[in-house]
Amino acid sequence: MAKAVASYRAPDFGAPPLASAPLARFEPVPMDGVLPEGFFSTSNLPTYVHMESGWVLPERPRMDCAILRRGDRLEVIEPRRLRRGDPVALGLAEDGSEGIYVHTAGFLAGAHSPNEFRFMSTEVSRERPVNYDILAQRLVDERRRGGYLLWVTGPALVHSRARQDFEWFIEQGFVQAVLAGNAVAVHDLEAALFGTTLGMSDSGEATAGGHGLHMRAINAIRAAGSIEGAVESGLITAGIMHALVTHRVPFVLAGSIRDDGPLPGVFTDSLAAQDAMREHTVKATGAIFVATALHAIAVGNMLPAFHTHHDGVPSQLMTICVDQTEFVVSKLKDRGTHQAYGVVTNAQDFMHVLRRFTETCLQTSS
Amino acid sequence: MAKAVASYRAPDFGAPPLASAPLARFEPVPMDGVLPEGFFSTSNLPTYVHMESGWVLPERPRMDCAILRRGDRLEVIEPRRLRRGDPVALGLAEDGSEGIYVHTAGFLAGAHSPNEFRFMSTEVSRERPVNYDILAQRLVDERRRGGYLLWVTGPALVHSRARQDFEWFIEQGFVQAVLAGNAVAVHDLEAALFGTTLGMSDSGEATAGGHGLHMRAINAIRAAGSIEGAVESGLITAGIMHALVTHRVPFVLAGSIRDDGPLPGVFTDSLAAQDAMREHTVKATGAIFVATALHAIAVGNMLPAFHTHHDGVPSQLMTICVDQTEFVVSKLKDRGTHQAYGVVTNAQDFMHVLRRFTETCLQTSS
Amino acid sequence: MAKAVASYRAPDFGAPPLASAPLARFEPVPMDGVLPEGFFSTSNLPTYVHMESGWVLPERPRMDCAILRRGDRLEVIEPRRLRRGDPVALGLAEDGSEGIYVHTAGFLAGAHSPNEFRFMSTEVSRERPVNYDILAQRLVDERRRGGYLLWVTGPALVHSRARQDFEWFIEQGFVQAVLAGNAVAVHDLEAALFGTTLGMSDSGEATAGGHGLHMRAINAIRAAGSIEGAVESGLITAGIMHALVTHRVPFVLAGSIRDDGPLPGVFTDSLAAQDAMREHTVKATGAIFVATALHAIAVGNMLPAFHTHHDGVPSQLMTICVDQTEFVVSKLKDRGTHQAYGVVTNAQDFMHVLRRFTETCLQTSS
Amino acid sequence: MAKAVASYRAPDFGAPPLASAPLARFEPVPMDGVLPEGFFSTSNLPTYVHMESGWVLPERPRMDCAILRRGDRLEVIEPRRLRRGDPVALGLAEDGSEGIYVHTAGFLAGAHSPNEFRFMSTEVSRERPVNYDILAQRLVDERRRGGYLLWVTGPALVHSRARQDFEWFIEQGFVQAVLAGNAVAVHDLEAALFGTTLGMSDSGEATAGGHGLHMRAINAIRAAGSIEGAVESGLITAGIMHALVTHRVPFVLAGSIRDDGPLPGVFTDSLAAQDAMREHTVKATGAIFVATALHAIAVGNMLPAFHTHHDGVPSQLMTICVDQTEFVVSKLKDRGTHQAYGVVTNAQDFMHVLRRFTETCLQTSS
Repeated sequence: MAKAVASYRAPDFGAPPLASAPLARFEPVPMDGVLPEGFFSTSNLPTYVHMESGWVLPERPRMDCAILRRGDRLEVIEPRRLRRGDPVALGLAEDGSEGIYVHTAGFLAGAHSPNEFRFMSTEVSRERPVNYDILAQRLVDERRRGGYLLWVTGPALVHSRARQDFEWFIEQGFVQAVLAGNAVAVHDLEAALFGTTLGMSDSGEATAGGHGLHMRAINAIRAAGSIEGAVESGLITAGIMHALVTHRVPFVLAGSIRDDGPLPGVFTDSLAAQDAMREHTVKATGAIFVATALHAIAVGNMLPAFHTHHDGVPSQLMTICVDQTEFVVSKLKDRGTHQAYGVVTNAQDFMHVLRRFTETCLQTSS
Repeated sequence: MAKAVASYRAPDFGAPPLASAPLARFEPVPMDGVLPEGFFSTSNLPTYVHMESGWVLPERPRMDCAILRRGDRLEVIEPRRLRRGDPVALGLAEDGSEGIYVHTAGFLAGAHSPNEFRFMSTEVSRERPVNYDILAQRLVDERRRGGYLLWVTGPALVHSRARQDFEWFIEQGFVQAVLAGNAVAVHDLEAALFGTTLGMSDSGEATAGGHGLHMRAINAIRAAGSIEGAVESGLITAGIMHALVTHRVPFVLAGSIRDDGPLPGVFTDSLAAQDAMREHTVKATGAIFVATALHAIAVGNMLPAFHTHHDGVPSQLMTICVDQTEFVVSKLKDRGTHQAYGVVTNAQDFMHVLRRFTETCLQTSS
Repeated sequence: MAKAVASYRAPDFGAPPLASAPLARFEPVPMDGVLPEGFFSTSNLPTYVHMESGWVLPERPRMDCAILRRGDRLEVIEPRRLRRGDPVALGLAEDGSEGIYVHTAGFLAGAHSPNEFRFMSTEVSRERPVNYDILAQRLVDERRRGGYLLWVTGPALVHSRARQDFEWFIEQGFVQAVLAGNAVAVHDLEAALFGTTLGMSDSGEATAGGHGLHMRAINAIRAAGSIEGAVESGLITAGIMHALVTHRVPFVLAGSIRDDGPLPGVFTDSLAAQDAMREHTVKATGAIFVATALHAIAVGNMLPAFHTHHDGVPSQLMTICVDQTEFVVSKLKDRGTHQAYGVVTNAQDFMHVLRRFTETCLQTSS
Repeated sequence: MAKAVASYRAPDFGAPPLASAPLARFEPVPMDGVLPEGFFSTSNLPTYVHMESGWVLPERPRMDCAILRRGDRLEVIEPRRLRRGDPVALGLAEDGSEGIYVHTAGFLAGAHSPNEFRFMSTEVSRERPVNYDILAQRLVDERRRGGYLLWVTGPALVHSRARQDFEWFIEQGFVQAVLAGNAVAVHDLEAALFGTTLGMSDSGEATAGGHGLHMRAINAIRAAGSIEGAVESGLITAGIMHALVTHRVPFVLAGSIRDDGPLPGVFTDSLAAQDAMREHTVKATGAIFVATALHAIAVGNMLPAFHTHHDGVPSQLMTICVDQTEFVVSKLKDRGTHQAYGVVTNAQDFMHVLRRFTETCLQTSS
């Protein structure tokens, strides 16, 4: 909130193009509560209407209404209140070219031209549709060009269906590296060994003694010596870590103060983890962040907004951030990763829908 | 937060079953940082271990750890800090039957029995997996039994893909009535006429002059006299309202103070709207609320937690509430609709995934 | 969502206490739309009314309504629809003792007794009032008893006013240890040196060249050798770190993969950080988590639900979790810290209001 | 996400001002891990450094780092990895004037000039500090100038402390009209009569039989004939409605489909409610929305972004929107009320802190 209200500067009606603007046109309402074709639809900004007497500000301004002429005066009015024959202003343009000028300067943050008033201007919102067709196409393009896709994930990805969908992306060659924390691997290995995550079954129910199962999973892997060893010995036969090991996709598990265990192979030193992660971010041509704040922001800090890997000149580095709320995406942007494209949804559903569209894209393009 | 801390009541170790509890067992750690099979995994509650000297509270309590014996004293310790040969407690039971007793009374809200400590106890959470198989099966069952499914929806359903998915459910007979507001119909009709919602295209981009398009859509329907008339005259050829009219599925559009227009047929009086809605809630055998707070709570207020329509005796009325955040579902429960099953996700993705699972369920059961 | 709907078990009206329940009482409506004193207010659960003909389930059930008698039949009806003289049921009890029995079993999760239907049952909600009087009293009590209060904080605390309020709590002896991350100290020191946090001024505006200021702050402290050194040399003259150093309050700064720098003294190894943190959690008699997910859950994992420091017997360890949304508090509980009392608000405002109430409490009790 | 990646246009290094840019300067690192004064701090955008050999893109780009010279090559590197004597680039400017040029075009949405990279660019965020000094000053200014302040509130304002704080604002003349729904009045009157809201006490506890108390409150007011009558007869002796009636501040209670009752005086027809509300919005010089989505958006739709009441020329209409999450504020903006200043906090705490600052402002200015 600015400390002082800027003093108002009216438009210069004596200068071009407003000096030569035509008079506004009016047409009678054809039936009660129904406007004529091409009616002018108001916004909440100062709006000047060119009348014989000069440029007039209508009274009672508000958005989503019509402008009614009452002699030399004008009134902004709800369409439902109009009666047959009432004269209302016409026009689609807001720049004066049809006799109506909407004065944005000083009233619309960051906008300096007419025709700027609009709805849905927030960039990151659950209300914006997500174009999965384009997302899927981008993944398929990157795979074709030999791109390097980083997946940065939180533990939500490990639940039931999302885990299988992520395995599919790994198997199909859409994953060149995974950056995650100890918990992702712990939950995945608990699921592989016991069918639960944090003691909760696939359908969300608690199991008896469940609160110790992740500790037993960690212990089993520590006894095996390494995650790779646990896969190779046949102890772990399914899941994300299994898919990564068997498809030789590199992963970095960064430690944190929340970790139980940790699992063998986890980088407990945060600087060593950063160094390991950065060897992947410098190769990346795309990055997908799913359901993680800490790792998304950490990787976002390391990730340039561009890369030069396809042809030597800078091109945009596709950065997709999926989270349940707008907050994480906005925070990522506020920490400098301005290029992030936000998808506000549940991680499980995202993976499932993206997989479906990617399958369709592969069938179509083959 | 309780005003006073309740004074502590220790367990009665002289009474059954604790009086006859065995001594706790200990086993040496097989290798550095690796626990023996069947180790006891701690919680954060007062935990008594039966030793020769009596029942002992281990020092330095915390969850997700082991219990190390140091002579007559016990210490809660991270597994990674243990060395080969260290004696640690064994046991899965927390009720004393293996010599370890976890004292929940007074420390775990609402729990009065042992073995109660667990993770993931919150009922509504984005972290709980959603079992779409069961949801789809319930829809198919209700259709087969001649149930009456109410859909209560907000405008988020009108965006692009969700709109088509909702049409599919209407066409397939899974929708017996729709309760919504003026905005749902306005956006749907704007999409049918202009391909936009609030001036935003399917892929989320603003269109020139877009801010007036919903007003032009409303005006076109007002000119046509009614939504039904606009469908029958061929003005509206697609979308949710088109599907409802052509499949003769009843709908109630309730007015609100946010409404533009409103469209013909909208109940502008809130009591008349309540009366119209209630004629559907008394028939309902199931209800699905998608992306709406006002309508979900309004319908929730009218909806019994049970119905007697299938066989005369009360059975649970399936109530599903889908929203982007936990808040709306929790609020619905806090307003008395305790039976609501929460699905925390994006409305678009919910509709898409639910349709897929319903299609699969239909193929499997046929 | 349970897989199967449990089959219904009706109440046993032949057994006590229902066998001896009186008939329900009815009284005429005194004026149109106004109920008699003591009217029965419905819930959405199966409700049996004792009539001459037996126990009757009223038709058209819903909550927040009255029960109208129409001969032998009963109808649940909105009060506004009643006319003078209509007979409606009376009663406050739901256990049959006034002739009306609400059947909760099977319909109300976790409730097994009558009189259980209620609103606002969710534990953590922005809609629950926070009793700052009690919170302040607890802080004052702990200080008086020589308690050990841990503050676990995220960077939101460093913004302008909250920073000063936190300094006040440190100076007044309400802080025995602070557990936080590198970022809390970095932002605090940036504010001390340049008056900004992440290049943003106190009033939320960006400053020229601001994106580098936190790097310059880190560099200045690294050049000084340590945070303590920077305070002692007079480089840092205000802020949280300054208050901690000058009042000799211990702090643990745990490193993470998001860190720039890091500052000297930060534990970059997450296991070393855990060990340092735990030396404080074992002493704690209370903990306040403000605006942090990672640190709250990490410390929550280490923190018992009780302590034995005041008199040797277990007493509840006051655990307060402040966050902008319900999610972090619920997640903390879902990770086992069930005892957390949630305060859903902005961190800045929390600190300001809590300080005010604590000041008042000190004045009152002195 | 744009469908195609725009082809890259490199800066024109042959044209002014870059043609005459100096060479970049380098200085040795003074001690391990410590940068020289005036070091260049990187962003994630394409960054060209003027070397003898021409303009060079450093390798391994990322933000928050230094640029290390290795002969003719440059590398972006974490400060902690530098050793004494390593040559690093200097400079604060990003426009080439110090030999370093950051190329924003095409990589930073909506930004077209150098020095544009920054953190905290999101407009509405819980992480932005709120300047209550300015908010309080604006309220005091409006009162002094005879402004017309609209308060648009949800039921959260009725809880305990916020209710008293709102009464204070009413009594002190900071409230010219209140626009709200039936529920605000119902909860306030329930609190006045029974000390509860929805059966929950001030400290958030459920009371026996509490779920019917709001119905009993409504019934009492209906019996009294009107809210005004209930105040005048002495039935209602405290609270928001009491303060409004006794201070003769007008209010509009708009009905909705969620309403119980409704109370006498509520506009049940949404168009009649809109008409009544608009008679206040046309007079408004400021508006404060607290904890309401429906009413905020409804009033936002009616409210111009400017008013002409103080001196006839358009000046900004102060619009403050307080909500627990960013979503409602962003939605309000997305529905066209772009001028809204968002305060992301708890409604109770907002009222308390704002009152404090307003009291201070009054003392200071008197």
